[in-house]
Amino acid sequence: MSRITLDEAAALLKQHDRFKILTHTYPDGDTLGCAYALCYALRKLGKQANIAVDGKLPSKFGYLAESYEEQVFAHEYVVSVDVAAASLLGESVMEGVERIDLCIDHHGSNSLEADNVYVDSSAAAAAEIIYRLLEPLGVELDEDIAGGIYTGISTDTGCFCYTNTTPRTHCIAAAVMPYCDWQQINYINFVIKSRAKIKIERMLLETMEFYAGGQCAIVYTTVAMCEALGAGDDEMEGLASIPRQIEGVKMGITMREKAGGVFKISVRTNDGIDAAEFCKKFGGGGHPAASGCSVEGDLGTVKRMMIDAAEEYLR
Amino acid sequence: MSRITLDEAAALLKQHDRFKILTHTYPDGDTLGCAYALCYALRKLGKQANIAVDGKLPSKFGYLAESYEEQVFAHEYVVSVDVAAASLLGESVMEGVERIDLCIDHHGSNSLEADNVYVDSSAAAAAEIIYRLLEPLGVELDEDIAGGIYTGISTDTGCFCYTNTTPRTHCIAAAVMPYCDWQQINYINFVIKSRAKIKIERMLLETMEFYAGGQCAIVYTTVAMCEALGAGDDEMEGLASIPRQIEGVKMGITMREKAGGVFKISVRTNDGIDAAEFCKKFGGGGHPAASGCSVEGDLGTVKRMMIDAAEEYLR
Repeated sequence: MSRITLDEAAALLKQHDRFKILTHTYPDGDTLGCAYALCYALRKLGKQANIAVDGKLPSKFGYLAESYEEQVFAHEYVVSVDVAAASLLGESVMEGVERIDLCIDHHGSNSLEADNVYVDSSAAAAAEIIYRLLEPLGVELDEDIAGGIYTGISTDTGCFCYTNTTPRTHCIAAAVMPYCDWQQINYINFVIKSRAKIKIERMLLETMEFYAGGQCAIVYTTVAMCEALGAGDDEMEGLASIPRQIEGVKMGITMREKAGGVFKISVRTNDGIDAAEFCKKFGGGGHPAASGCSVEGDLGTVKRMMIDAAEEYLR
Repeated sequence: MSRITLDEAAALLKQHDRFKILTHTYPDGDTLGCAYALCYALRKLGKQANIAVDGKLPSKFGYLAESYEEQVFAHEYVVSVDVAAASLLGESVMEGVERIDLCIDHHGSNSLEADNVYVDSSAAAAAEIIYRLLEPLGVELDEDIAGGIYTGISTDTGCFCYTNTTPRTHCIAAAVMPYCDWQQINYINFVIKSRAKIKIERMLLETMEFYAGGQCAIVYTTVAMCEALGAGDDEMEGLASIPRQIEGVKMGITMREKAGGVFKISVRTNDGIDAAEFCKKFGGGGHPAASGCSVEGDLGTVKRMMIDAAEEYLR
């Protein structure tokens, strides 16, 4: 494994011809925005490229794939985008993949095994790196590429609100906006909510409890709640940011029951509380202010575990 | 009244020495961000300048005034910032003011009577204009000025999400960020919510009704609801954006009862529906996607009026 520079990453992409681009599980706007932008860029260079997504492309991101058709070829070069660890590569994504040739990521904690690794943890989104690759690749912006990049940086920064945003993030937004329908992208990702989503948010707020003297807020959804409201994966997105918003809360914990007795836990923090360190105790990880883990058990047990751990951590 | 250029506006500011800066009623982040940034800039040039705010400075914007102390002098030049119409100038703001010498604004509908008017309706926020004045004024950015400008542009664009955002908006953000604590400004304006605010949001959602085949969503708060929850003006901010978020809604109407039997109506629209035109019927106005008006009457009557008008308008 060798750590390489941005120009070396561009050179490797130029040297190869038949790409498979890997995205992470529970695909978000950054991994998908990167994958589509890079795929369209490589195809513009006359290369073949396909994207591997775990499960179905979330319907809200359908616009990214408008110009995408699966190509038929045997890949010779595998690139992962925004994938921080091997555990985030779904089985279906890894079908026919023996090794990862190039890893492009912005997670400082990146532990993915790949022949070549380019990680820039100063990038608010991995999509910033894809943007910066365009020049050495010799690819001009177009609507498809710009839409992927705008999607990645806007979703990973909560529309330029989170503390990971930098002046460079804004400059890249300014550069890609003229090429894509960013208004529609913002509307899809930040404005529109289904009536089911509004209902699940209200129900989530009703579960909210405070601990550690108000520094920790914890909320949950169960499979039964979601079924009762007809809320699917699309409706669950963004719920994790809710408990952290309350005045005085330093750690917001959102517990989401999945089928099979597992809770997907999202931890969001303020005031420099390290969410990644907290989630590591439960085999998870992520960014300092936004991390996650999965814990098996029933609602009462898992909730008690999280509360106890949070109270100790915030002491 | 004469329409002037940006350079002419800068020249007028340079020629005078004792300023009173006027902000609009229900002061928001843009009018206040402009006023403080301009005031600090003028003081940096050795001039005297005070700001007139209608009522108390909203507590959340207290950070803007950290370096501000009222100066004692008789003003000779009156500048309004982000004030679109005479009706938006509160009585206390107009005390001792006989005429407005310079109007700086970004509302295309601006109708304020002033000797000199500079309106740039392509600016997402009036604070963009204040930023662009710094160079001809010969004033360098500092924390206070940058904080005012960042506040104005971020709040008027919903943190770079609304359709009024432009590449220039992002470029200005990139330029001012290194000078100010934009993370804290975002936290105050876009993240943190009091427990009372969460409660009023839940109660607001419970009042939501749909009309015009789901194209119009209407919500309201009453004086009694606010009193029951201990919710004041700070808690009410941002509520107007809620009904427009629902899938299929083209016009979101938020009715807020004020003391004295008046409803303050906020209208937010999608899909090119003109909110300003709609509000004009009720003596109000604003931007195409975000306008307002005030209507006297009891809840049932005012609500019926708004529903009838919306159903006709959306037909």
